[in-house]
Amino acid sequence: MIRVAVNGYGVIGRRVADAVAGQEDMQVVGVVKAKPDYKARLASEKGYKLYASDEKSLDAFRKASYQVSGLAKDLVREADIVVDACPEDIGARNKVMYEQLEKKAVFQGGEEHDVAGVSFVAQCDFDQAAGKKFVRVVSCNTTGLCRILYAVDRAYGIKKARVILARRAADPEESSKGPIDAVVLDPVSLPSHHGEDVMTVLPHINVVSMAYKIPTTHMHLHSLIVSLKDGGATEAGIIEAFDGTTRLLMVEGKEGFKSTAQVMDYARELKRGRSDLFEVTVWKDSIKIVDDELYMFAGVHQEAIVVPENIDAIRALYGGYSASDSIRMTNKSLGIVK
Amino acid sequence: MIRVAVNGYGVIGRRVADAVAGQEDMQVVGVVKAKPDYKARLASEKGYKLYASDEKSLDAFRKASYQVSGLAKDLVREADIVVDACPEDIGARNKVMYEQLEKKAVFQGGEEHDVAGVSFVAQCDFDQAAGKKFVRVVSCNTTGLCRILYAVDRAYGIKKARVILARRAADPEESSKGPIDAVVLDPVSLPSHHGEDVMTVLPHINVVSMAYKIPTTHMHLHSLIVSLKDGGATEAGIIEAFDGTTRLLMVEGKEGFKSTAQVMDYARELKRGRSDLFEVTVWKDSIKIVDDELYMFAGVHQEAIVVPENIDAIRALYGGYSASDSIRMTNKSLGIVK
Repeated sequence: MIRVAVNGYGVIGRRVADAVAGQEDMQVVGVVKAKPDYKARLASEKGYKLYASDEKSLDAFRKASYQVSGLAKDLVREADIVVDACPEDIGARNKVMYEQLEKKAVFQGGEEHDVAGVSFVAQCDFDQAAGKKFVRVVSCNTTGLCRILYAVDRAYGIKKARVILARRAADPEESSKGPIDAVVLDPVSLPSHHGEDVMTVLPHINVVSMAYKIPTTHMHLHSLIVSLKDGGATEAGIIEAFDGTTRLLMVEGKEGFKSTAQVMDYARELKRGRSDLFEVTVWKDSIKIVDDELYMFAGVHQEAIVVPENIDAIRALYGGYSASDSIRMTNKSLGIVK
Repeated sequence: MIRVAVNGYGVIGRRVADAVAGQEDMQVVGVVKAKPDYKARLASEKGYKLYASDEKSLDAFRKASYQVSGLAKDLVREADIVVDACPEDIGARNKVMYEQLEKKAVFQGGEEHDVAGVSFVAQCDFDQAAGKKFVRVVSCNTTGLCRILYAVDRAYGIKKARVILARRAADPEESSKGPIDAVVLDPVSLPSHHGEDVMTVLPHINVVSMAYKIPTTHMHLHSLIVSLKDGGATEAGIIEAFDGTTRLLMVEGKEGFKSTAQVMDYARELKRGRSDLFEVTVWKDSIKIVDDELYMFAGVHQEAIVVPENIDAIRALYGGYSASDSIRMTNKSLGIVK
């Protein structure tokens, strides 16, 4: 059994903890929380051993009458591998602790590539991470893009990919975030960092990106325009490539998938925890080739898509698993059928 | 004085009527409304002579104690030129009446190109419409795109333009429209019609477009990726081209224009009626050239941008004006400084 500590119990940490608990070869040794809020209550109710992020946090938990098993470093000592799901940049600070305690760690996409040296999407570069000390699971957008672009590149070769990201501005729980009735260019200056981030996983693919935030809470929407090397590319060929791609769900407008709303409604029917959609969503009938350029729409459930990658990243660091074995085990446990 | 009838008093008709009233060489002979709602009240209060769209409409107005001067056809008889601002496809039906009464007419972008045979953006093809019987002012998105692409094409030549339109889903008054928390692919199947529509004005420019609706009420947001013929294109050169382009407003992120919200807030300060922004908005610091491709963001105030085009289209049909004279007169009357 791989003993996993989950440091941070927010949007990602909560999901990773449950996913780890669902693996036959892993166990959750505990989770770290900073504040005694409702998420701490959830962790306790689910039976996870709770650890405080620091002394001040420990004090707050005690005042709120929580049973706490110790500090983050106490938990890390008990683990084989840490999944660091702390807010952006905190992971980089935590790395010192993981190094001191000689523990392997999985970081999230909010951290810089250099924190780990390996940026990870299971089906693209599992072997790059195998046996390493640190790995960085890339952001939700990058994960979705990598799954798609890797498949297109293998089928026809990519000359250049251009991506416009319409980003959900806030997660459903983030009631203080805006905008309400505006498009926020993020950033105004182009290109955005997303293209560059894809290249931390797929360095041979040239990607230029633009991004803005819109008033939605569910799914990022990607518009892709991909120049292909192979002049013989067809829409059927692209669809065939996606059919053979794991963690990629194809939907069609004519089935009623006219927007992100229907995709999330579909996800709710899958009876997964939190209505999570781990697959990147591709609108099959949006796929169009014009003058050797592929045009298409894709969607990313921002809270969920990196969960399977975190599980595979744990196995990659631990060693002894092949990419295909790990992906198969993870998919089965999470209800991902393809 | 050019005697103008405004058939339809909705989002566009209301604005065009006021703009016509503000021209030294035009007068509003009356406006046509279908229903005695608050917009009819506004028309009366502003002193426009009110005409009913048909007998049934006339009856409704009488029951609501409105003073009505007659039916649409009575108004059309009194006019030199009709601006048809009726809902999509109604314009095409009205054309029969205009032909019977031998009146010239300006249609809107909701109609097909063939209704008029000439699709119009003043600074691109005023002379094409000069002296014609009918002209079609293109949609708000097409108008904005034409102003931008025409300028870029003149500066560096366009090999291919790709545009992603994040469309405001509803105008501020449309309280029954959605979505609230979703991106609606419109259409799912690519490309969208917008690229083709630009080519009704600029047939030599190859434009491919994708579009979706987002939960906002103000401005469409365009992401442009334009392959240039001239390998020597620079960002400064693009900015220079835009500096010399009328009805194009440049804003900068560093001035605080981080989103569409600040642009509309700026427009409210201009003390124009309805806080209208007739100019297409370009984020100057978004302009970026990567490998002979121009990347940039632009915004379109969907309710307002076609107003100056309607005024110029009237003059083009009437005859005897040059493009530059008409544009100068229109700009001055509407407070467009460049």
